[in-house]
Amino acid sequence: MQITQPTLCIHINQAKNNLLEMKQKADEANIKLRPHFKTHQSAEIGHLAQTIGITSCTVSSIEMALYFAQNGWDNITVAFPVNILEIERINQLAQTIQLNLLVENNESIQFLQENLKSNIAVWIKVDCGYGRTGVAIDNYSTLQQLVQEIENSSKLNFKGFLTHNGGTYKCRSKEEILELHRLVIYKIANLKAQFPNAKVSYGDTPSCSVASSFDHIDEIRPGNFVYYDLMQHHIGSCSLNQIAATMKVPVVATHPERNAVVVYGGGVHFSKETFTFSDQTIVFGLVKNINNIPVREDIYLTQLSQEHGILTMPDSLLDEVKLGDIVEIIPVHSCLTANLMKHNTVYL
Amino acid sequence: MQITQPTLCIHINQAKNNLLEMKQKADEANIKLRPHFKTHQSAEIGHLAQTIGITSCTVSSIEMALYFAQNGWDNITVAFPVNILEIERINQLAQTIQLNLLVENNESIQFLQENLKSNIAVWIKVDCGYGRTGVAIDNYSTLQQLVQEIENSSKLNFKGFLTHNGGTYKCRSKEEILELHRLVIYKIANLKAQFPNAKVSYGDTPSCSVASSFDHIDEIRPGNFVYYDLMQHHIGSCSLNQIAATMKVPVVATHPERNAVVVYGGGVHFSKETFTFSDQTIVFGLVKNINNIPVREDIYLTQLSQEHGILTMPDSLLDEVKLGDIVEIIPVHSCLTANLMKHNTVYL
Repeated sequence: MQITQPTLCIHINQAKNNLLEMKQKADEANIKLRPHFKTHQSAEIGHLAQTIGITSCTVSSIEMALYFAQNGWDNITVAFPVNILEIERINQLAQTIQLNLLVENNESIQFLQENLKSNIAVWIKVDCGYGRTGVAIDNYSTLQQLVQEIENSSKLNFKGFLTHNGGTYKCRSKEEILELHRLVIYKIANLKAQFPNAKVSYGDTPSCSVASSFDHIDEIRPGNFVYYDLMQHHIGSCSLNQIAATMKVPVVATHPERNAVVVYGGGVHFSKETFTFSDQTIVFGLVKNINNIPVREDIYLTQLSQEHGILTMPDSLLDEVKLGDIVEIIPVHSCLTANLMKHNTVYL
Repeated sequence: MQITQPTLCIHINQAKNNLLEMKQKADEANIKLRPHFKTHQSAEIGHLAQTIGITSCTVSSIEMALYFAQNGWDNITVAFPVNILEIERINQLAQTIQLNLLVENNESIQFLQENLKSNIAVWIKVDCGYGRTGVAIDNYSTLQQLVQEIENSSKLNFKGFLTHNGGTYKCRSKEEILELHRLVIYKIANLKAQFPNAKVSYGDTPSCSVASSFDHIDEIRPGNFVYYDLMQHHIGSCSLNQIAATMKVPVVATHPERNAVVVYGGGVHFSKETFTFSDQTIVFGLVKNINNIPVREDIYLTQLSQEHGILTMPDSLLDEVKLGDIVEIIPVHSCLTANLMKHNTVYL
C-alpha cells in the first residue's frame, strides 16, 4: 500500500502479542483483564481482543460504549465519573448490555436511582494517590456511606472499588513503577480489610506491564499496552520493539543549514503531547526509520505546527533524505494519536 | 439546545464581526484578504466569508482543498510545501479550480513540471525569520534561480513570494507584534526591490490583527482571527470579547479539598496545546462562564487527560458548582480544538 499522507500504521502482530502477554499475566494471577479501549477506539482491535478470549472492556465515554456495544461487546465499564446529563443514552445502553458505571458522590447515586430505567452495576471511584478524581482510598467513612447508599438503591448493584494508579506515568524505570505499585497494593489491602466483599479494579499500563503480583486485585484495566508508545518506553513499561503503532509521514522539504527535515505531519496528526528527555529536550516523536536508518536517539520531532513537523537530525545523515521519502515515527502518546488518526489508520 | 457532552460553540455574530473587520482593513489597504481556513475547516464559516465578499481562501492540505472545492470555493492556495506524493489529487483539483501551490526547491518544481496534467499557479515559500520552512527571504541567488525555473516551466505560473510571520506568536503585546511586523515589512521591501514584478502574500493573525500598514504586500492570509483564542489574547491580537469559539463541558465531580472541579472535556476535545502565563502557570483553557461567574484570571483548566479536565478555582466559588453544571471555556488554540470537535460543533 502506498502511503501519500500522514498515516497511522498498526503492526497487528505486535498488538496481538501485547494483548496475549497481558492476558497470560492476568490468567496466571487469576484476575480478569478488562482492557481499556480508549487507546485504539477500534472495532478491529476489539475483534482481535475477542479472538484471544477477552470478553469485557473498559471505555472512557458513553459515546465509546455505544460504539463498542454496536461492535459486539456486551459488558462494558465506563471508567469515567458518570455524566448525569447523558442519562438518555445511559438508559439506552443499559437496556442492551451489561453496563458498569463509576460513582464517587451521593448526588450521582441519587440521580441514577431516580432516573435509571433498568439496573446497572456501579463501581466507586477511589483515588489511590494520583489526585485526579475519586474518593481518597483511605476515607473509609465516606466510602462506607456511599456503599450503603448503593446497597439501599433498587437500581444499582455494587461491584466494588475502581482505581487508576496514574502516578506511574511520572516514573522513569521499572524499579520506580514497582515501588509505586507496591505502595498502592498496600493501600488496597487496607481498603479490602474494611470492605472484604468488595471487588477491586486496578488500572494503568505501566504497573500492569511491569508487575507480576496483583494481590487483593480482582480486575486490571490497562489500555495503552496494546500499542505502547514513546512515553511508555521512557517510563519503563516496554521495549521499543513492543511498540505496535507508528506514524508514516512524507518529507516535504529539507533544510541542511539547520539540520532540519520538514514532514507533512503536525499537531492534528500526532497531537501536541510532548515528552521531555532527561537532558530537557522536548520531543513530539522519535524517528523509527528514515531510509533504513534505524532508531537513533538523535533523530526526533522537535516542533509541530498544525500540519508541519520538524525533524532534527545529524548533518551526516541529511544527505540521504529527499522529497517524497516516507519517515516512520513513534508517537509520544499513542492514545491521542490514534484518536486523531481514526480516519487514516492501516492495519499491517 | 441542551448541551450534554463536550461541545464547541461558535458565536456566529462575533465570527462575522471578526471577518468584517479584517475585510475592511484589507479593503482600506487595497490588498486581498485570502483567509486561512485551517482554523475552522467548516463549510458554514466558509459560506459566512462568502457573504461578506471573500472569494478565495487558503488551506494547509490537499484534503482541505478538496473539501472546500466541494463546498463552493474555486480559488484555493495550499499554504504548505507541495507534497509530491499527492500528485493524483493535485491533478484532480487543478482540473476543477484555480489551484495555487507552494514550492521552495528545484525538486518540487521539476516534479510538478513533469507530472502536472494542467496548469497551476505557484508561490515560492520564503522564510522571513520564523525558521520553519522556506528559502531565506534574503537569499536572492537561490530565489532568482527558482523564479527562473518556474518561468521556464510550461505548467507553472509564477505568482510571487509567500511568507508566514510566525515569530509574532512569541510576542506578548501589540507593540512587540508591530515591531516584528515592521522588521518583516523592511525585509519584504528589500525583496521587492530585487523582484519588482512578483507579488507578496503575507500571513499570521497577530500582525494582521494589530497592524494597519501593509506596504509592499499584495495579499494577507490570517486564519485564526475568525475565532481567536486564549493564546491570541495573550499575544495581544484580540480582546477576550472578540473570541468567537468556546467549549461547553459538563461538570462530573467536585473536589473542594483541593479546589478542583472535574469536567468531561480532555485532550481529545481541547487538544494538548498549553499556554504559559507570565507567572509560569501552565493552562489548557480559561473559564469564560461557570454559573454566571464571569471570566476571572484564577479559574482555568490546569490538567487534561484523554477525557478528564481539571479546573482550578478559588475556595469561595466552589460551593456554587454542582454535578451537571455546564462550564464555558476559552480554548488555548482554537484551530486545534476546532479540528478535534468537527463532529460536535454548534453555531449559535
